[in-house]
Amino acid sequence: MENNPLRTEISNLGEFGLIEHLTKSFQLKNKSSLVGVGDDAALIDNGDWLTVVTTDLLLEGIHFDLMYYPLKHLGYKAVVVNLSDICAMNATPQQITVSLGLSNRFSVEALDELYEGIKAACDYYQVDLVGGDTSSSLQGLIISVTAIGQVKPDKKVLRSTAKKGDVICVTGDLGAAYLGLQILEREKQIYLSQPDMKPDLEEQEYIVGRQLKPEARVDMIAQFAKSGVVPTSMIDISDGLSSDLMHICKQSGLGAIIEESGVPIHPQSQEMALKFNLDPITCALSGGEDYELLFTIDPKDLDKVRLMSDIYMMGDMVDASEGVKLHTKGGNIHDLTAQGWKHF
Amino acid sequence: MENNPLRTEISNLGEFGLIEHLTKSFQLKNKSSLVGVGDDAALIDNGDWLTVVTTDLLLEGIHFDLMYYPLKHLGYKAVVVNLSDICAMNATPQQITVSLGLSNRFSVEALDELYEGIKAACDYYQVDLVGGDTSSSLQGLIISVTAIGQVKPDKKVLRSTAKKGDVICVTGDLGAAYLGLQILEREKQIYLSQPDMKPDLEEQEYIVGRQLKPEARVDMIAQFAKSGVVPTSMIDISDGLSSDLMHICKQSGLGAIIEESGVPIHPQSQEMALKFNLDPITCALSGGEDYELLFTIDPKDLDKVRLMSDIYMMGDMVDASEGVKLHTKGGNIHDLTAQGWKHF
Repeated sequence: MENNPLRTEISNLGEFGLIEHLTKSFQLKNKSSLVGVGDDAALIDNGDWLTVVTTDLLLEGIHFDLMYYPLKHLGYKAVVVNLSDICAMNATPQQITVSLGLSNRFSVEALDELYEGIKAACDYYQVDLVGGDTSSSLQGLIISVTAIGQVKPDKKVLRSTAKKGDVICVTGDLGAAYLGLQILEREKQIYLSQPDMKPDLEEQEYIVGRQLKPEARVDMIAQFAKSGVVPTSMIDISDGLSSDLMHICKQSGLGAIIEESGVPIHPQSQEMALKFNLDPITCALSGGEDYELLFTIDPKDLDKVRLMSDIYMMGDMVDASEGVKLHTKGGNIHDLTAQGWKHF
Repeated sequence: MENNPLRTEISNLGEFGLIEHLTKSFQLKNKSSLVGVGDDAALIDNGDWLTVVTTDLLLEGIHFDLMYYPLKHLGYKAVVVNLSDICAMNATPQQITVSLGLSNRFSVEALDELYEGIKAACDYYQVDLVGGDTSSSLQGLIISVTAIGQVKPDKKVLRSTAKKGDVICVTGDLGAAYLGLQILEREKQIYLSQPDMKPDLEEQEYIVGRQLKPEARVDMIAQFAKSGVVPTSMIDISDGLSSDLMHICKQSGLGAIIEESGVPIHPQSQEMALKFNLDPITCALSGGEDYELLFTIDPKDLDKVRLMSDIYMMGDMVDASEGVKLHTKGGNIHDLTAQGWKHF
């Protein structure tokens, strides 16, 4: 400790650095604890089944702005982001708990709206609300959701098990959620300066929807099971393709090369990015909150994966010494950087 | 909805009323979801084992005051209160997740202290930290802990399964944690008016310790297993004996009668209550935060329970029509009221 200042700012470490710093002295003691901190979810051995557990904390003013985020959508999203982490282990979500901190600004009617969204997600994804905690807060809305799922031991997928030569795939399309947030932020600024202006979000319905109503890809988990494919590694895209691919590379001890032409971007995202003077590929790489699945497969499974819908092949896992790179449409090679979603 | 006002205050419903209101439309859909909202923890069927899950949200300014609550103790307590809920299902805690919301007031060194306490609890109770989430907050410290445990299906204990004639028992002693809080609050006021005064908490070490370093009764779960006793119902005392006994009564469809002379109160609690001009039995009934186990046993198990240490028999389960009552040392009968720990 000799050269440490008396006070180290959390921002010096960043989110991932902080988690590593705080948890490095914790060793797993119970043989049922198969996977702890460091993947999308924890894995707990229960014999026939592995129990999969993940948790997320959403804070008003940090993760959402109630000025443009309807409470019903917020409730839905708070559930979905956790289910997405369960999916990233190739598991099926089954239960959630929801804890709330509420300031006296919130009425029962406001909470009913929030719970309508939570219930809509529970119904759509067939998960059960099995617990939680409710408390008053001094300021703002606090939502803590824990999701629990199941997976058979031989079907579990970690971040750390990609192999050199594996094909990098992604579901859906990327960058739209980030652009949706830009639209909502812009409309908020317009509203603040001209309260009479009515926002017209209709043309941007798809993009705004990707921000306000993300979905967890449980359909993909079902497709994998049906096709008999087990990805060699997987993560959900919450921080952005670039940052999340880095996690797979780092934890698998490998590098990666991505083809720009293989990164799926929706035509509306393409168009909207240009309107905002943003590079569409940058939005796809660093936007985050897409909640799509990024995974690698053994080349021998390529034929099976080609028959599955909504999956895009983007590149290959390579030696760590080759780094993590993007091959652009123009033929250039760029280093990817982890521009995760930084809170601190 | 015709006669509803446009806005219903949360305080109109209270904590338990609010939870019931928000969750009543949720039905359990998965056959693995054995017990949902309404007990100390949820029970999930995994075949050989039931997985037990509980979660608690602790907010600065609502649940703790950092002026007298050392961060290390807070970390320890945040874990313990969740482990206690796992014990209340007669289960063994095995894993936790910890999510934090942090304002920039907190340094890495402050978090290290908090995590020292979390680690001390993990080491003492042999549980693994397997996940979590870390985020900045606009104000104050937010701690959300989820605990996961295991129990064999035939050993699980609910709140709802007490039978008429069962004997009501409690572990440890009651009321000390509440009195400890009174001492800390008093010392805070003294400090605020006379910052040079050094608090002398030594004589109240036991009582203050019960507030600052509560323990979960995992030792009792081990004792039950060793003695071959399965309580007929159980709950942990977080809100106070009165309120928690009401939960068992309501959920089992029964009444109860408690003997004042059977309620265990530590001599130091007795003495301190009188110094504060409080009735010791009131502190024991309504204080809360004791994290002892309140349970009922079949009279046929009485001989086994008598051989176990630190267990006190306080009364009997009776018909619901007889209400929930206290038989005082003076020979009077009082109705017990649920003076739970009200946030709203």
